[in-house]
Amino acid sequence: MLNYHAINNPELTQWSFTETKFNPLAQGKCESVMSLGNGYMGLRSATEEAYIGGTRNLFVNGTFNRFDDLEVTELPNAADVTQVELLIDGQRFSLETGSVTDYERTLNLRDAELTRSFVWRSDQGKRIRFEFKRFVSMHDLHLIGMKVQLTPLDEGITLRLASGINAQMSNSGSQHFHEGEKRIFDKKYLQLIQTTTESKVDFVMNALHSFWIDGVSAEIKPQMEIERRKMEMAYSLDLQAGQTLKMQKLIQVHTSRDADVEGAGELEKLRAHSLQALKKAEEAGYDQLFEQHRQAWASIWEKYHFEIESEDSFDLLALRFAIYHLMVMTPVHDRRMGIGAKGLSGEGYKGHSFWDTEIFILPFFIYSEPKVARTLLEYRYLGLEGARRKARENGFKGAMYPWEVAWPSDGEVTPVWGAVDIVTGKQTKIWSGFIEQHITSDIAYAVWHYYQSSGDQQFMDECGYEMIFDTATFWASRLEWDEEGSRYVINEVIGPDEYKEHVDNNAFTNYMAHFNLQLALEYYNELKTRNPELLSRLESSLNLDQASREWQEKADALYLPKPDERGIIAQDDTYLQKQIIDLAPYKSQTKVGTLFQDYSLDQVNEMQISKQADILMLFYLLENRFAPELKRANYDYYEPKTLHDSSLSFSTHSILASDFDDKKLAYQLFRRATEIDLGPHEHSSDAGIHSASLGGIWQCVVMGFAGVRMLNGELHLHPKMPDTWKRLSFPLYWKGSKLKISITEDQVEIKTDQDAEIELVIYGKKTAFTGQLQFEMIHI
Amino acid sequence: MLNYHAINNPELTQWSFTETKFNPLAQGKCESVMSLGNGYMGLRSATEEAYIGGTRNLFVNGTFNRFDDLEVTELPNAADVTQVELLIDGQRFSLETGSVTDYERTLNLRDAELTRSFVWRSDQGKRIRFEFKRFVSMHDLHLIGMKVQLTPLDEGITLRLASGINAQMSNSGSQHFHEGEKRIFDKKYLQLIQTTTESKVDFVMNALHSFWIDGVSAEIKPQMEIERRKMEMAYSLDLQAGQTLKMQKLIQVHTSRDADVEGAGELEKLRAHSLQALKKAEEAGYDQLFEQHRQAWASIWEKYHFEIESEDSFDLLALRFAIYHLMVMTPVHDRRMGIGAKGLSGEGYKGHSFWDTEIFILPFFIYSEPKVARTLLEYRYLGLEGARRKARENGFKGAMYPWEVAWPSDGEVTPVWGAVDIVTGKQTKIWSGFIEQHITSDIAYAVWHYYQSSGDQQFMDECGYEMIFDTATFWASRLEWDEEGSRYVINEVIGPDEYKEHVDNNAFTNYMAHFNLQLALEYYNELKTRNPELLSRLESSLNLDQASREWQEKADALYLPKPDERGIIAQDDTYLQKQIIDLAPYKSQTKVGTLFQDYSLDQVNEMQISKQADILMLFYLLENRFAPELKRANYDYYEPKTLHDSSLSFSTHSILASDFDDKKLAYQLFRRATEIDLGPHEHSSDAGIHSASLGGIWQCVVMGFAGVRMLNGELHLHPKMPDTWKRLSFPLYWKGSKLKISITEDQVEIKTDQDAEIELVIYGKKTAFTGQLQFEMIHI
Repeated sequence: MLNYHAINNPELTQWSFTETKFNPLAQGKCESVMSLGNGYMGLRSATEEAYIGGTRNLFVNGTFNRFDDLEVTELPNAADVTQVELLIDGQRFSLETGSVTDYERTLNLRDAELTRSFVWRSDQGKRIRFEFKRFVSMHDLHLIGMKVQLTPLDEGITLRLASGINAQMSNSGSQHFHEGEKRIFDKKYLQLIQTTTESKVDFVMNALHSFWIDGVSAEIKPQMEIERRKMEMAYSLDLQAGQTLKMQKLIQVHTSRDADVEGAGELEKLRAHSLQALKKAEEAGYDQLFEQHRQAWASIWEKYHFEIESEDSFDLLALRFAIYHLMVMTPVHDRRMGIGAKGLSGEGYKGHSFWDTEIFILPFFIYSEPKVARTLLEYRYLGLEGARRKARENGFKGAMYPWEVAWPSDGEVTPVWGAVDIVTGKQTKIWSGFIEQHITSDIAYAVWHYYQSSGDQQFMDECGYEMIFDTATFWASRLEWDEEGSRYVINEVIGPDEYKEHVDNNAFTNYMAHFNLQLALEYYNELKTRNPELLSRLESSLNLDQASREWQEKADALYLPKPDERGIIAQDDTYLQKQIIDLAPYKSQTKVGTLFQDYSLDQVNEMQISKQADILMLFYLLENRFAPELKRANYDYYEPKTLHDSSLSFSTHSILASDFDDKKLAYQLFRRATEIDLGPHEHSSDAGIHSASLGGIWQCVVMGFAGVRMLNGELHLHPKMPDTWKRLSFPLYWKGSKLKISITEDQVEIKTDQDAEIELVIYGKKTAFTGQLQFEMIHI
Repeated sequence: MLNYHAINNPELTQWSFTETKFNPLAQGKCESVMSLGNGYMGLRSATEEAYIGGTRNLFVNGTFNRFDDLEVTELPNAADVTQVELLIDGQRFSLETGSVTDYERTLNLRDAELTRSFVWRSDQGKRIRFEFKRFVSMHDLHLIGMKVQLTPLDEGITLRLASGINAQMSNSGSQHFHEGEKRIFDKKYLQLIQTTTESKVDFVMNALHSFWIDGVSAEIKPQMEIERRKMEMAYSLDLQAGQTLKMQKLIQVHTSRDADVEGAGELEKLRAHSLQALKKAEEAGYDQLFEQHRQAWASIWEKYHFEIESEDSFDLLALRFAIYHLMVMTPVHDRRMGIGAKGLSGEGYKGHSFWDTEIFILPFFIYSEPKVARTLLEYRYLGLEGARRKARENGFKGAMYPWEVAWPSDGEVTPVWGAVDIVTGKQTKIWSGFIEQHITSDIAYAVWHYYQSSGDQQFMDECGYEMIFDTATFWASRLEWDEEGSRYVINEVIGPDEYKEHVDNNAFTNYMAHFNLQLALEYYNELKTRNPELLSRLESSLNLDQASREWQEKADALYLPKPDERGIIAQDDTYLQKQIIDLAPYKSQTKVGTLFQDYSLDQVNEMQISKQADILMLFYLLENRFAPELKRANYDYYEPKTLHDSSLSFSTHSILASDFDDKKLAYQLFRRATEIDLGPHEHSSDAGIHSASLGGIWQCVVMGFAGVRMLNGELHLHPKMPDTWKRLSFPLYWKGSKLKISITEDQVEIKTDQDAEIELVIYGKKTAFTGQLQFEMIHI
């Protein structure tokens, strides 16, 4: 359905992808993968004209609201500004009627611009050329720009164009907004206010329409309509054959949570500011506003400059696709906000953040722009309050991070009910919010990862130590004493593999908890000499004296599952005893979901079927604790039993394949990871793109193909590029220095502009350089 | 667009009307005028397959809920059960694609059945015959039945049919429901619970699908989906050419306000009851259920048996249309519920009741089924609590009835903000809830009207006197003393003409207030002798001793505007001094709304433009206070200044035209009244049918053409049938006796089965009869 070759625009090769035929049954695909945004807001790319099956979404980061006590908080779907209804000769324009030629909908990643163009022939035989453009400004975070252009080719037409602001939107029926004032200023500027019902966040939406006919500004008197939760301007006019109507719609979006607007908390000030901003935008006009936006993106691409020479030009495009979406979803402007599992591109997972951020996305920022990584970790620091509350509520101590988090102080926000159980006909209970506890050590791990790679001592002093100590304290209180085995165990959890609920001693969970305890101990001992003042401050607030003794005792006695005679580590206490079924019928991407049409979750729980990388994840995160042969044996055992029914699975498998030098498999799995959003499955992205998978794509390349790792605080490099690649180059931050790493078939070159000496380990050999270093590729 | 001749089914002549071409831009028309219901619930007739611009509504009477403090309470839009998505060979079936022949959508009024049939040729050239049927049972108030039938004519097809219960619906964005449990029983019965957010009314929806192929029951394994606020079954199968698939969907709807279900307040009991009812319905099957429904409607039509022989067969159809909708909208089963201004056919006016019920609809029931009239007045009796609260809150005494009412104890529920003011760009404030006060005397008038015509002394003793006394007490407290004129005046009101706000001494309001005061005095004096015990009870609770003295004093000194030298009574103190503009450009039905594209309400307020019958209304209600010549003079003055921008206008004008013997005009205006919903205007019924207009259609015929009136407690008959009519016969209740009145060109016949002697006044001459009476028509 999507074309990855810039067919009509060679300049955009590896920078764009194109839908060449509109498919009304699969609108979610392009709506999501072509969604626009700037970290402040995300705009799903629904078509201007509405279709049954379309989903219009506009989310502003961090504006969470809870519909009622039975639901969990979520990012509310703000008023729609993108719908434009076109009546042509009295008939509603729709691509489902008449016929269409030269259809193209393209997302240009370089300029972050969505375009759509085609020639439509009405049922009456009149041909009309349409062009649409749209961007969400990276220069002015509050600005959306749209352009609509129509040219009747054969005969004149009568046109009615209706467009406005529509706050009748909801989140699949849940309405998060009070209806606010709707106002038209100067018969021209539309302003609509909506306020979230529980969190009381004011949204101010302003919109403006301007027209040109054949390039000449045209005043068209609108019919103004204010309906319930909706306001609209309808413009009627006649266009002759060959005449071109251009409509420009500019939109300003503000909320009372805007940190960049003084007095944003006062609605009248915010309204005035927002209207003023719209008038300023009007003066500049679409083209100039777009140019500012384009330049902002040019800086971004300069910062994240990747080069890939591959037999398949798709590979670089897929990587850019990942970076593009990481840019549009990440709230670099405000540390009170996280990254949603679907970014800002759909309702899926309600805008909540999971371990996806720390384990799958954060490495990208750690190595590409450490200050953003820090912002994201500060978001978790702000979340300590909610994590401590969750611990208390569950009878534990310290900080028990929520499985899903929204506004940081909200704490746990995982919903409780999921899809239907085909056996009982009831909805399945979602246990993750209660017992998927590895998130707490995942966050501690991320702090450690960031600190080791960036050397950001200030962050550790201000946030990091406290997070690591209090998460360790949680684990110490969480472990259960197993009298029979004379050891501590962790019963009744869900590991990364969410098909297995209420399991005991999930290996990933136990090892990561152990890591967390050990790390706390290590830092505790370090701080005694390095910063006794800070330690004493933390000691009194976190009761470290007693806690640290407990960490030691419990870490020492924590059960860490060991490999059996085959070298297989059991995913949990009972996994290896469960029934094995043939997963072949469910292994293709389009069939994954059908497993639960045949079996209930309870039934799957009793089979050796894994949703995603579980124990394999551990081999990646704590790689030097496990021997390469062990990893391969476990890969060979578990992969056939894994459905990859999670976007977190393929990239991990790919990196592991790189680790044990299976370049072909690594590349195959990299491609599978890119297909999660960009592949042929028409509905895989309906609820939004897959944030973790996008981070995973970057990891496949940098951690997998380039073999970049942080081990024991050292930068390791172990390139093993796919055979189809001739060259790979990318930027990498290490302890404050920006490196540029270029890998060809024969050699590796590392450059840095800074003066500092860079230490690293190449193919296992420690070395150091200043300025530039070259070494030969070792071929496997 | 609508065809009123039963083209393909002569048996349904004057019983049905048909849409012969589907118009996706005007779906609201058929959705409303073809809506189904049974007084308990109303189902808008949206098509099974969804279209942009369609509106799906299911309302259950009396289940009001308020979204938030900024909105007023309204009838919530319950989960949709009617949508059926059909994928044919992988393409979504839509009448906007391919081509269609033999299209018919018909509302059969006799059987209250909606049918739709056509042959659709896909873009691939395959022809398929479709048939749809639907009813909302009048036998089992909780039952909806649907049938879908498909026959591929040329080649086999692959079909996917998805259908279920969708609670993602809202009222134009306002979500009134908490999401409740969704459950599938026996992989077959869908059950969805939703509970209103503020009023806490539980809704239980159950649905079931059954299939037959060529008449043989077919088990098709569904794919079950439970999404947010939604559950669905998807059935996939292949159909060969000539094979017919029949799908039957049965739905049970219950709420915790059901008075007919024991333990309805306990959700578990209600769920069990509802599921049981669905299983019982399943046993019976669509055809038997429909037959029970058909018989219930046969009894209704027997009860309201009209005959009209007219040159235009449309006339009887229009009357039956009115009676049909009065039946589907009126909650005869529960006196806690009223009649919405749009019935149960759309979101318009939020399900609220206005004076429409008492003045425009009630006469139909008073003379056709008095016990229903009583139920409707009891609803107002229950509303006394809210009326007294409104009086207190406004600084008055007694009962000040709300302009709009919902759940009776809620009191005033008129919204405060309306459409945009084109001058200021702000929303217009709706003043009716504050100052449109004539509703209070309208209700007193209705009590009197019912009592005079039915002789129902029990109702008066239990409810009526109290209502009349306490409304009079309101007026006594409301009147303002005008020192200069030495009289009581009523300033700052809105009369029936809502284009004039904040006027002083609206003639209608003053006369009706006077009527109310006089009526209270009359009954007060009557009760002294007739029922002193009751009077003494009311005296103490309503403080009648003092109140009655005030009624007398104020009625005597209340200013009642008199005609000027031209015989014109001023609509209010300033109306006649205002600017007169040419209304011709706005007078046609399709142009009415455009007035406010040119002028703001403030500007219209300063012109002699009336929305609807105002002073003319008075001539009808208090007809023997005004001379015929005066009525005609005022008609000729005001009508050209009246836009009839209210469905309450034409019928009143028609009856007045009958009153002054202008038969041609009366018939013309009757036709205009029928056109409000049945006419060619494509959007007039978008928000729902016009309840008052439907009552008005009946009044045009019975009060206008047959000249039936209650004057001074006597039944008057003054027939003046349109020249194009040969015969009119109808039932009429009078003081407990059911009469059958038949009017031909030459004579009038009145029959009664009862023994009682009937007294009446024919063409001004008092007479009496038992059994049967005939007299000659007087031709004008």
